[in-house]
Amino acid sequence: MHAIVVTVSDSCFARQREDISGPAVGRQLQQAGFTVAQILIVPDEKERICETLCHAAKQARLVVTTGGTGIGSRDVTPEATRMVCNRILDGVAERMRAIGQKDTPLAALSRAVCGTRGSALILNLPGSPRGAVHSLEAVLPLLPHALALLTGNTEHDANDADHSTPAMLPEK
Amino acid sequence: MHAIVVTVSDSCFARQREDISGPAVGRQLQQAGFTVAQILIVPDEKERICETLCHAAKQARLVVTTGGTGIGSRDVTPEATRMVCNRILDGVAERMRAIGQKDTPLAALSRAVCGTRGSALILNLPGSPRGAVHSLEAVLPLLPHALALLTGNTEHDANDADHSTPAMLPEK
Amino acid sequence: MHAIVVTVSDSCFARQREDISGPAVGRQLQQAGFTVAQILIVPDEKERICETLCHAAKQARLVVTTGGTGIGSRDVTPEATRMVCNRILDGVAERMRAIGQKDTPLAALSRAVCGTRGSALILNLPGSPRGAVHSLEAVLPLLPHALALLTGNTEHDANDADHSTPAMLPEK
Repeated sequence: MHAIVVTVSDSCFARQREDISGPAVGRQLQQAGFTVAQILIVPDEKERICETLCHAAKQARLVVTTGGTGIGSRDVTPEATRMVCNRILDGVAERMRAIGQKDTPLAALSRAVCGTRGSALILNLPGSPRGAVHSLEAVLPLLPHALALLTGNTEHDANDADHSTPAMLPEK
Repeated sequence: MHAIVVTVSDSCFARQREDISGPAVGRQLQQAGFTVAQILIVPDEKERICETLCHAAKQARLVVTTGGTGIGSRDVTPEATRMVCNRILDGVAERMRAIGQKDTPLAALSRAVCGTRGSALILNLPGSPRGAVHSLEAVLPLLPHALALLTGNTEHDANDADHSTPAMLPEK
Repeated sequence: MHAIVVTVSDSCFARQREDISGPAVGRQLQQAGFTVAQILIVPDEKERICETLCHAAKQARLVVTTGGTGIGSRDVTPEATRMVCNRILDGVAERMRAIGQKDTPLAALSRAVCGTRGSALILNLPGSPRGAVHSLEAVLPLLPHALALLTGNTEHDANDADHSTPAMLPEK
């Protein structure tokens, strides 16, 4: 199963800072059995994030972002993710926050979302290496089952996969 | 207090499978003091679910669905429920997921919602008999109080009950 | 740091009932180090609440409402708050409900939301004095950090503060 990691950070994109979270998340996914195809770095710009997520969701079943989930004026990763997803899975983000709060009450401020685009799962993680790794750990056990359901490999796998794409961003 | 149960399932509707969850939820509601007026079976089709919910919400104060809350391509019960509700009660679905996760981490994948339409409460439950019964159990203690508030039987019961219907689906 | 408390209640506005919750929340904020600039009382009317929140968010960094978060037909505080906020912080409301449920399962029925408008934080609390005080207590530790992030006093404090105002209600 392929995964792509997207680090969302102006300063990492401008090479003013080293990307720590992206590689940390990548290692964690590899240990969980995923093949990490790429670790991409994009600035905190909604359109760039949208384009990157759409492209990544064609190439990998799992797309994990890190960064841009806070409440600073540049934080737009959740907005971009909502735009490209056709379904939002509130319970997955809830679980990340609930488990994150055992670590720090500030986890409640995360606006991270999780959703699906076609048969890909897109998951936002916070930008700090510790927050990213802990959040991913909280939901890692769900991912294989979620990805199996998304392939349509269920009782419901009817001939209408188009049902799952009403809100998708039009391809360019 | 009357309740209607709606089983949402292509295979139960096509009589390829017996409906176990609907009757299980019905028994649970009866034990809690509700009069279960009907157990309906509809396919996983958004329009059919919307119509059924609208009709049921006129005949009963509590409408409970089972099925179609997952992330398969045919799962559209939450979308239909959001369309017919004028208010969404995020905390009720949150509570079902939070308590469900003591049973299985997969409860986080449920997209079930709870909302109100006029003075009726509509509650989505998962499709599996065990998931449906556990989810209902988690919120059963809330229902009498919620239904009392919805009758306007509170300090707020002003002469403007129309306030509660801005987002309702137009009647056919 | 300045805070404004807004009590949303028809009966308090009509002086048919004394406002207990507003002053209780005010005292709690003062003990936490905020300067409470005003305690306002408005009726349960969406437009009036919107206008009051917009005005308050210009004068204080923290705006706390009490009342109107239930499911009665007159309860519209969450709707008004969503209209004036540019970002919703689901995790903050989730935390209030999660901690509130240790007190009473009915906390799940609260539709209270928390969001940002420009560099102000707007927080809904329930109307009962006990519910209001407990809910605020649950999130008080988050507020200083959240308010610091909102000033743009972070790594992200770029020259594009306008990024944070797409969904704001137009000024009159």
